[in-house]
Formats: sequence, structure tokens, C-alpha cells
Amino acid sequence: MTQLKLQGIIPPVATPYTSDFQIDKPSLRKVIRHLLDGGVHGLFMLGSTSECVFLNPQQRGDVLEVAMEEAGGKVPVVAGVMDATTDHVIGHARQAQSLGVNGLVVTAPYYTRTSQAEIVDHFAYIKEAIDLPVIAYDIPVCVHVKLARETVRELSSRGLACALKDSSGDDGNMRMVMLDHAAEPEFAVLTGSEIVADYALLGGAHGCVPGLGNVDPAGYVRLYEAAKRGDWLAARREQERLIALFQIVFQGLPHTSMGASGVGGFKTAMQLMGLIEERKMGRPNRLLPDAGVAKVREILAASGLL
Amino acid sequence: MTQLKLQGIIPPVATPYTSDFQIDKPSLRKVIRHLLDGGVHGLFMLGSTSECVFLNPQQRGDVLEVAMEEAGGKVPVVAGVMDATTDHVIGHARQAQSLGVNGLVVTAPYYTRTSQAEIVDHFAYIKEAIDLPVIAYDIPVCVHVKLARETVRELSSRGLACALKDSSGDDGNMRMVMLDHAAEPEFAVLTGSEIVADYALLGGAHGCVPGLGNVDPAGYVRLYEAAKRGDWLAARREQERLIALFQIVFQGLPHTSMGASGVGGFKTAMQLMGLIEERKMGRPNRLLPDAGVAKVREILAASGLL
Amino acid sequence: MTQLKLQGIIPPVATPYTSDFQIDKPSLRKVIRHLLDGGVHGLFMLGSTSECVFLNPQQRGDVLEVAMEEAGGKVPVVAGVMDATTDHVIGHARQAQSLGVNGLVVTAPYYTRTSQAEIVDHFAYIKEAIDLPVIAYDIPVCVHVKLARETVRELSSRGLACALKDSSGDDGNMRMVMLDHAAEPEFAVLTGSEIVADYALLGGAHGCVPGLGNVDPAGYVRLYEAAKRGDWLAARREQERLIALFQIVFQGLPHTSMGASGVGGFKTAMQLMGLIEERKMGRPNRLLPDAGVAKVREILAASGLL
Amino acid sequence: MTQLKLQGIIPPVATPYTSDFQIDKPSLRKVIRHLLDGGVHGLFMLGSTSECVFLNPQQRGDVLEVAMEEAGGKVPVVAGVMDATTDHVIGHARQAQSLGVNGLVVTAPYYTRTSQAEIVDHFAYIKEAIDLPVIAYDIPVCVHVKLARETVRELSSRGLACALKDSSGDDGNMRMVMLDHAAEPEFAVLTGSEIVADYALLGGAHGCVPGLGNVDPAGYVRLYEAAKRGDWLAARREQERLIALFQIVFQGLPHTSMGASGVGGFKTAMQLMGLIEERKMGRPNRLLPDAGVAKVREILAASGLL
Repeated sequence: MTQLKLQGIIPPVATPYTSDFQIDKPSLRKVIRHLLDGGVHGLFMLGSTSECVFLNPQQRGDVLEVAMEEAGGKVPVVAGVMDATTDHVIGHARQAQSLGVNGLVVTAPYYTRTSQAEIVDHFAYIKEAIDLPVIAYDIPVCVHVKLARETVRELSSRGLACALKDSSGDDGNMRMVMLDHAAEPEFAVLTGSEIVADYALLGGAHGCVPGLGNVDPAGYVRLYEAAKRGDWLAARREQERLIALFQIVFQGLPHTSMGASGVGGFKTAMQLMGLIEERKMGRPNRLLPDAGVAKVREILAASGLL
Repeated sequence: MTQLKLQGIIPPVATPYTSDFQIDKPSLRKVIRHLLDGGVHGLFMLGSTSECVFLNPQQRGDVLEVAMEEAGGKVPVVAGVMDATTDHVIGHARQAQSLGVNGLVVTAPYYTRTSQAEIVDHFAYIKEAIDLPVIAYDIPVCVHVKLARETVRELSSRGLACALKDSSGDDGNMRMVMLDHAAEPEFAVLTGSEIVADYALLGGAHGCVPGLGNVDPAGYVRLYEAAKRGDWLAARREQERLIALFQIVFQGLPHTSMGASGVGGFKTAMQLMGLIEERKMGRPNRLLPDAGVAKVREILAASGLL
Repeated sequence: MTQLKLQGIIPPVATPYTSDFQIDKPSLRKVIRHLLDGGVHGLFMLGSTSECVFLNPQQRGDVLEVAMEEAGGKVPVVAGVMDATTDHVIGHARQAQSLGVNGLVVTAPYYTRTSQAEIVDHFAYIKEAIDLPVIAYDIPVCVHVKLARETVRELSSRGLACALKDSSGDDGNMRMVMLDHAAEPEFAVLTGSEIVADYALLGGAHGCVPGLGNVDPAGYVRLYEAAKRGDWLAARREQERLIALFQIVFQGLPHTSMGASGVGGFKTAMQLMGLIEERKMGRPNRLLPDAGVAKVREILAASGLL
Repeated sequence: MTQLKLQGIIPPVATPYTSDFQIDKPSLRKVIRHLLDGGVHGLFMLGSTSECVFLNPQQRGDVLEVAMEEAGGKVPVVAGVMDATTDHVIGHARQAQSLGVNGLVVTAPYYTRTSQAEIVDHFAYIKEAIDLPVIAYDIPVCVHVKLARETVRELSSRGLACALKDSSGDDGNMRMVMLDHAAEPEFAVLTGSEIVADYALLGGAHGCVPGLGNVDPAGYVRLYEAAKRGDWLAARREQERLIALFQIVFQGLPHTSMGASGVGGFKTAMQLMGLIEERKMGRPNRLLPDAGVAKVREILAASGLL
């Protein structure tokens, strides 16, 4: 197994649909080129923002094929293999492996309720089945259980995960996790936050997985580069610009759920920017209402992206 | 579309595995005969207790085929079609329809976060795609959102659901829901509780979907019949006997999660009773430890089932 | 210490205010007479519905004095001694004891976060300080921790509580608690639910502590008496009538919080019925808006109480 | 009313007890001198870490008197006025005002459940009653409701609060709040976090209210000064040293609650450092067990504080 070194900006790539809910491959290619042109350091396909759990195996495969072609070895491609239980995850992982991805992103099981010990077992079963680097993905808002600090330690010490993507919003705990692993430079910690990425980088995070990076990859790359060179004021200014842009995620409310408002905000912006044909999302997510679309346009314009 | 009249005891049928995690069809047949011999009034295949979310399409199909054959039209068979998003649910529903089930059991989406309005849309898309009666399944412990009282009203008034299975544990709200629908005798309300089934029947519930019914179907049928004839003291006595038996669900703790402890308690009891060959569960659920198995045996013996 | 035998209907008595937020003693007397005329079996002063945590020591004392006078030994009077920490509770308990109450109602600490072991210690310190019967009060919606089943067992076995008032809404757990204590007839279990009181009585509860009993004590007494004589259908019919009346608690939403909507619904009804002068609540609770008052009037009329 | 400019390190001062649970004034003086010697920029008396809700009015007054004397006008003194409801808070606020404090720290009500609109009313009633600057205190772990971003905006725009102390742990939301108020330099935002104070300062926070500042005020002052001069790497290094020290808060578990483990960790360290006589906490908080005390000693030694 080759090593996977994750760092920098690795956006969870949005998944554009055609009008009949197939993968819109031309739009997906355009999105990936937009990201690579923006300077991103990796691609996270089939994440939560990518609507992974809405896709069937054919669609998951289509997305990964396009990504591998477009990435062309220039940046690593990691694949979300989200599913409720161990053996479904292994099935997705086999497909992803056969398509050549560089790593897997694995959450705790969901729907079924598992203990921290069973979560460790879950990662162990996957590692046993698939010889690929695994990024542990902490996203309690979706799976409704948190990867405990001790669980992350066990995943690392047993070689069951080579990185953590922390989308829990618990930045204090993530900070302690980073220090727990300070002596393991090969263990990467990535934040899933769009709005406190500069914080995480100051704390020693290796990178950021921002959904908003679909809209403004160059902004996140600038933020990351400022942080790398220790120019924290420049990082902060870039972060503040991106927080203003981030307000696009609230424009579906209360017509839609927060989930649909967020992904819908990204897709609406991407459509307005000419990156994708359709802004539809997987069912039953509702589209942003017209007033929300107008507000997204306004925010984009204010951010200099239109 | 034929009408579906649900009432009485409709257990969520446990799914026995072979040693290599395939459906153990002979054991499944034995379980279903045990249930029919116990007098149950319907079969709920592929519920949460059935480990639905652990199964692949082939396994889901195997389970439904066996169930349709064994039920032989004597009792209705309804099928859980649990999945995270609308179109996956429709896929499972098509399979279930092709196998001849009498109704579908549908939860809110999960992993993705949806509003109550989007949940109603979810049921509407499913109804539009599949002409089968739908039982709305309220199980926040798994999907992490509750079907609001107003949502149930809308599902009923728009013909999107013909029944509610309430596993929320919020018996007060369920009572108000029953009164909301008191003038719609065709709308069935079923409780998912093993331990307050008599309460629900007193309040007007049409039936009960008890996981513990896998172990003691005749007990639940006696409880139901006592309630039907208005002998509430007999119903209560039977319920109390079943609560003592229900303690088998706590014998995995803390070695396992509560989820694995519950299903594991049922499967361990069923193995001890000679109904199934293996007590294994889908991964990563942990098996009850030896001390838990011993305790389950003891409880079964005390309940007169061994 | 005299024994306390709690059973039947023991409403948490609402606390009427004068226009300048003092205890409106004449109204309070009228309320208590209304309850006694309705046939209630005890009085729970200074409960959550009584806005206990809004009152200062003088006001708490005023309420208890009026209650002891009006009860006149005809029914037991128990006093809530809600406060955040042990020693404050002991302070309230000393006052209540000096005014002659028959028992204390004690929750877990709040604001501060305590473990189940520390909650047991809390009850032990109180028992050590005050020689009065203690009713353990499980109300996670206010104190944000639940009295675990094991905690209740320990409180009973160590003589730290003689009864449980369960307002948790977890009727399944409460049922198991009742069976845990089935061999201790002196340990009373009371439900705090207004809408499934018949359930609890069927399950063996000794009584009910319904906030709505302020509005219709006779209805709850009829429900209880029907249950006592085993006429469960009559109990259910009375319960259903009371559920229709219970809809007064939702008429402040969304102008007020749910808390203010509930107590405000009771107080508005009581004012419309001529029992109290003012329907104001402790600050910052908002009053029901006019439309809510009109709806309460309508519901009261439909219930035959106006 | 004089303006209150809060910035820098403003620790929530621990409250030492005598063996019979009175305020240990000599120890409190020693603690405050230790803080002032460490260079802190203000004193927050009667916060959550100060066990405010355990104290009676006499004890609250004792604490404030000592603080005013020791501060001697050199740094501002703000007082927590925590209580469940508006009028109790106003009572504490009157006492605090009479003792000359420079500002009040006010949470949302608790035990009673309030809406965001009622929370705004709560602050408005307090402001109407007391002419002192108010710091809004967001601490959902204690009061179980969050001050919404919109609520903070309304508190600021209506002059009901001059600052926010954010102990919610939701650093992303706090970041957006800081930007919402970027054009109001007089509105201070302070973090309650001990372990990501450098983050908050990078994001523009005016200061930090660290419980751990009782143990190592000079460390937090160094962190703050490094941040002020833009030396973010020095700030990070100091923060990391303080995170290692922060592990003292976990040494009571599982013998105590997390709450008692945290305050107990601070008090144990302060006793070991010779700052206070007794490490006892308000009842029913349990003391750290011997093994926990030994671990605290070890952590202190490793941090160079023993």
C-alpha cells in the first residue's frame, strides 16, 4: 500500500446532476477543472456535500471515473464510502479501489447504533478487507455519534486510519486530538469547517475540506498559503471574506432543511457562475426558492465571484 | 391498489444468518412458522430489528421470498424499505412490490437532514412511484428526526400513508395522534413498544409491532386478545410477564452497544430455543458475551420458554 | 417521621399573582377550594407548573401557608423545593418543614451538571438534614438529566425517597420502574402526564400529578375512580375528554415558549373560569396573545367548562 | 452609567470554601492577588467555575466585597448574577450594584424553558431595572439553550448587552457573531474556552475568560500578549502548554461528574500550589479521588507550576 500524504485544500466535490438525475459528467469535469485551476491539493469525491448517500453504485462509479481522469495523478483523489453498515462500506470501498482512488473516507455506522468499541471494529473490518489508506470522518450531524478522542487514538495506533477529517464543530476537542498526535507527523488532521479554517491551521491542522471550496477554491488556497508562510493576518482576512461568502448556505431557510439550504446554496452559486447546468439535488431535498437564489447572486457579486 | 387492514400483533421478524452471513433460509422459515403458530396477525419483514440496513438487495429479496411463501396469504406481509434517501427507498420498494408484499414501511430519510416538509415530499415521491399501501415509521432513535403530529396528519389526509408505526417512545404524542385520526378508522396506529403495548391498546392502537414477539409471539397474541375482549387486567398481567422477559435486551451491555444488545438478546434467546442456528448479527455489531448468554438463558427459563 | 401515603390525583397547584407580582392569596384559596371540591387526594404546591423557581422565599412561604390552612389536614400537602444545588434545596426544605408540609418534592440539581452518583448523594444530604418524606421528581425537560432506573432503586432501597413523580415522558422506563418496586407497596409511583394518566394507572401507578388538574380536577378524579374500580373504558373516555381540553397548552405558540404556552394556557383558562384574577406569569414568560386566549375559551366551552 | 471596556484575560475566579462551607476570605484574597500578579486584565466573580449557583446571598456578597477591595480599581470586576428567572437575577444584580461592581454577567433563564424572544425580554427587564453594563453569557451546557446569533444582534442593537461571553463551544457561530459586530468596536466578544483561546484572538475576540486562568494566569496573559503583538506562533506554543495543563480537568472521572471533575481539578491544583486551604466544592459535587489528585500533581509538575 502506498502512503497517502494529505495536506492543503481538499474540497468535497459537489455532484452535478442532469435533468433526469444522472451524473452530469461534463459539468463534473468543469467543476474539477475549476478546482484544479484554483490550486486545490486534493479531491474528496463522494462526501456529504457531494450527496454521496443519494447515489447508486453506477453513479458512485461514474463520479470516481471522471475524477480519476481529471485528476490524472496531479493530486490525490479520496473517495467517501458512506453507508450504514460495515459490509456495505466494504462494497463501496472495493468499487473505489478498483477505480484507483488513493484513499477512503469512512464514517461511523449510522441508522444502527454502535458503541465506540464497535466503531473501532468497523474500521478494523474495513482495513482487513481493503488495502487502502483510510481517513476517519467525524460527522455527528449526519451519523449522530462522535468519534471519541480515545477512539481516534486507537484508530491511529492500530494503523486503522491515517488521517481524521473532523466535521464535528467541536474545535476544542479537535485541538486536543491534534496534540495527541503531534508526534505522528504522518497522521493528518483536516478540518471540515469552512469558517474557522484559519483557526485549525494555526492549531496545526494539515488541511481543510471546505464545501464552499467548490465555489471559491482559490480563496481557500490563498488562505492555506498565507497560513503556511505564517501570515496569519492575511489568512484571517481571507477567512473573513469567505465567511461573508458562506452566508449563501442559509438562503433556503425555512423553505428547505438546513441540509438542502447548504448544498443548494453551493449548487445555486455554481450554476450562477456557469460551472454546472442544473442546481437540482437528490430527492427529497427542496430547491432554494427564488428569493434565495436572488440572495445567493447578491452575495456572490459582493464577493467578486460574479 | 388493494386496501391493507393492519391490526393485532405484527412482529418485526428477525433475520437469521448462516455462518458466512448469508440469509439462513431454513432458520427463517422456522422463525416464521413459530410466529404463525403463535397466532400473529401479520409479518413485518426487514424492520430495524430485522437488521434491514445491513442487508444487500439479494438478501432483502431472499427474506421477502421466504416470507411470502411461508405466509401463503394467511396474514399480510409488509416490508421495510429503509434507506437514506428517496430514490434508494423507491428501488427497494420496487423489489418488494415485485415479490408481492402487501405494504411498505417507510421512515424519514437519514444521514441527510430533512425538514418536515421535505419528509412529506419524500412520502409523496414514493407514493407517486409505487402503488402500494405505505406505513409511516416513526423511529427517531435511528433516523434522528421525529414525524411531527402535523406531518402524520398531512400524510394521512393526502393519502400518502395508511398507517403509523410509532417507535418513538413518546406515548403522549402518539395518544394525541390516535385522537387526531379517531374519525379515520382505516388509518391504523401501531406501537413499536414491547413494554407498554397494553397502554397503546387501551388508548385505541390497532396493534403492536414487538421485536420481542420473535421470542414469545403467543404472549403478545394473548395480550392483544385480552385487550380486544376488554380484560385489561389480563392484558396487564401478560404485559408484566413480557416486561420480565424483555430484560434479555440489556444483557450485552456494556460490552456491546444498546442496539447490538437488543437484537443480540433476541437472537440469543431464539438460538437457545432452537429456532435459529446462529446468533450472529451484521457487522460491526458485537455478540453478547458469555455472561450475557447465561443471563438470557436464565430469563428465558424464568419465563417458561426453555 | 410520619409515613406519607400518596395516591390519587395530586395536582401541581398553579400560583396566581397580583398585578404587582405578589402571591394573590384570595385567588390561591379559591383555586385550592376548587381542587378540593373537585375531589383531589393531595396538593402539590410549588411544582414546575406552580412556577416554583420564579418565587422568592417570602412568596414560597405565602403559598405554603395558604395551602396548609386550606388543606386543613383533609389531604396531604407536599412542597416542591426546587433549586439548583443541595444546600439551597435544604434551605427551602427547612422552611417547608417549619410550615408543616407532609412531604418534599426534590429534583436532581440543575445548572451544575451532576452524575447519577452525585444525584444520590444529593438526596442523601437532604435526607440527613430534614426528617420528612421525600418524593423524587424526574423532570429532565427542566433539569436536563434523567433519574436512571438504578438511581430510583438506590433511592428507595436506602430510604432516601418514598415515591417517584415521573414527568420524563418515558413511559416504558417508568413501567419498568413500577415493576422494580412492585414488592414495595409503600413506594408510590406517580405520573406527571396529563394525557396518558389512564395508561399509568393501568400499569400500576398510584396516582397522577396533572397540571391540567388545576382546570378540571373533577375530570381527573373521575378518571382515577374509574381506574380504581377497573372500568378502563370509562377511564379512557375521560382521558380522551381531557386530551381535548389539554390542547389549551399549545395556544401561545409561537409567540411564547412552550413553557409559557403551557402554564399560560392553564392560567388563561382559570381566569376565564373565574378562579383567578390575573393570568400573568413570572418574568420573562410571555402572555398568550389574544388569538390564543380566544382559542382557550373555545376549547373550554367545547369541554363544558364555561 | 460608565462605559465598560473588556479585553484581555478575565478569569472566572474560583471560590474557596472553609471547612464548614463559608467563603474562605483569606484564600480568596490570595487567589485574587495571584491573578493580579499574573497580570490579568479583569476579574469575573461568581461565574460557573466560581460555583455561583451554590452560593447564598451572604456568600455572594462576601465574594464581591473581597474582590472589590483587592481589585482596588486597578482592573474591572464583573459579577455573575446567575439565577433561573428574571426577578431573581435582578435581585442579585441589585446586590452586586450596591457593592460597586463594574458590570453584570447574565445568562438565559434556566429550569424554566424560554424562547429566544423571551430571552431578549429577560435582558430588557434587567436593563430596565439596573443601570450597569451587561455581558451576555452563552453557556448552553448549563442553561440548555443557546443565545442565537440573531438574539446577540438584537441585544447589541437595543443596548441590552455590551459584550458576549461565549462558552458554547460553537466556535464557528462565534466567528460569525464577531463579524456581525465588526463595526461595533465597543461590543466585546470574549471566549470561555481554555483550549482554543488563540483561535478566538486570531478571529478578533477581545479577550478570554479561562477557568484554568485560576491556576496559571501568567500563561494566559503571555498568550494574550503574544496575540496582541501578532506573534501567533508564540501564542500557539503557550496555548499548547496550557492544553497540556488543562488535562487536570479530566482526573475526577468517572468517580465524579464532568462538572465536579473540572472545578475539582482547578481547586486541587490551587490547593497543591498553596493558594487555597481546602479543595472542597459545593454539594453534591464529589471530590477528586486520590488517584486524581496524584495525577493533577504530576501534570502541574510537568507544567512547571509545582
